[in-house]
Amino acid sequence: MAHSSMDRPVLPFRILTLSGSLRAASSNSALLEAAAVLAPQQLQLVPYRGWGALPSFNPDLEGAEPAGVLAFRAALRDADAILIASPEYAHGVPGAFKNALDWVVGSGEFINKPVAAINASGRASHAQSSLLDTLAMMNADVVLAASLTVALPTNKLDCAAMLADAGIAAALGEALDALQEHLLSLGLSVNNS
Amino acid sequence: MAHSSMDRPVLPFRILTLSGSLRAASSNSALLEAAAVLAPQQLQLVPYRGWGALPSFNPDLEGAEPAGVLAFRAALRDADAILIASPEYAHGVPGAFKNALDWVVGSGEFINKPVAAINASGRASHAQSSLLDTLAMMNADVVLAASLTVALPTNKLDCAAMLADAGIAAALGEALDALQEHLLSLGLSVNNS
Repeated sequence: MAHSSMDRPVLPFRILTLSGSLRAASSNSALLEAAAVLAPQQLQLVPYRGWGALPSFNPDLEGAEPAGVLAFRAALRDADAILIASPEYAHGVPGAFKNALDWVVGSGEFINKPVAAINASGRASHAQSSLLDTLAMMNADVVLAASLTVALPTNKLDCAAMLADAGIAAALGEALDALQEHLLSLGLSVNNS
Repeated sequence: MAHSSMDRPVLPFRILTLSGSLRAASSNSALLEAAAVLAPQQLQLVPYRGWGALPSFNPDLEGAEPAGVLAFRAALRDADAILIASPEYAHGVPGAFKNALDWVVGSGEFINKPVAAINASGRASHAQSSLLDTLAMMNADVVLAASLTVALPTNKLDCAAMLADAGIAAALGEALDALQEHLLSLGLSVNNS
């Protein structure tokens, strides 16, 4: 357990962040940027944006997956935990983001992987519960204490505005602390990459 | 109301069918093929397969949609009704199929459009209810009487085997009759294309 070891530097946990929106001005992407700034020293947040370019999942391609799918799986494997922030489209998870998850159901990168899902809108309750259900079905280690909805006063806030908002910063801090606490409780070796 | 007109041939209603699976041997695609064979004379079932090639939905592309998106929207507009058969992946609608729906939430092709969703597996209840919820949120005219689950004895049946199974054929016939009855009750002009 590297965190209690005295004879080498303590590396942070590697947290892969996935925004479920491809919009340039996405509130969920901004929320993850703000989280990266606020993260405690033991968490290193690393965004992964390549999922938007994945083709439609087709079970017939098992064993002949496109390179982007293999890169996505490798990025998930290399992470100690995953932090998702996803919007809601038409009462559901954005299809393109769910499509990325569909590519890793069979390959198993989410099995026992600590995952938290935060959410930038109080109205997105259908998608949030549906996403948590899908993650649980994939046997992810869903960290509910770190999975919370951050109510935004408007959907026009960028990362700087979120950092300047005490309520948002406090909610993010709470989620990050809960995620870190969970990882420490598992006695994970730090940085398995 | 072409159906009551005596002075021109009665054309069938145009029903666009969408299988939510891209697998070559998909049970849901086979179910739609069987439905096309069993359809009453007043329903013409036309498969649309192009949705699998749509890129990830990105709201920033509004007004600059790729050609495939415009073709999908036109196909939906030209249909009198939509018949969907979708599998369930990880307790949800297949992401790629939901992605196709995300592309038409804003453009409105589903508004007031009669839509039925049949389903080739009794275990796919999460995806079926989630799909119906999304369609309702899109203000589609969801035809619940034509939206049913067809319990399959195995998932290895092709179209011919489904047609040979009295129970499956009866369930499909029931769904198609309910869809036709609904279209007739609307007094729709036949073939609006």
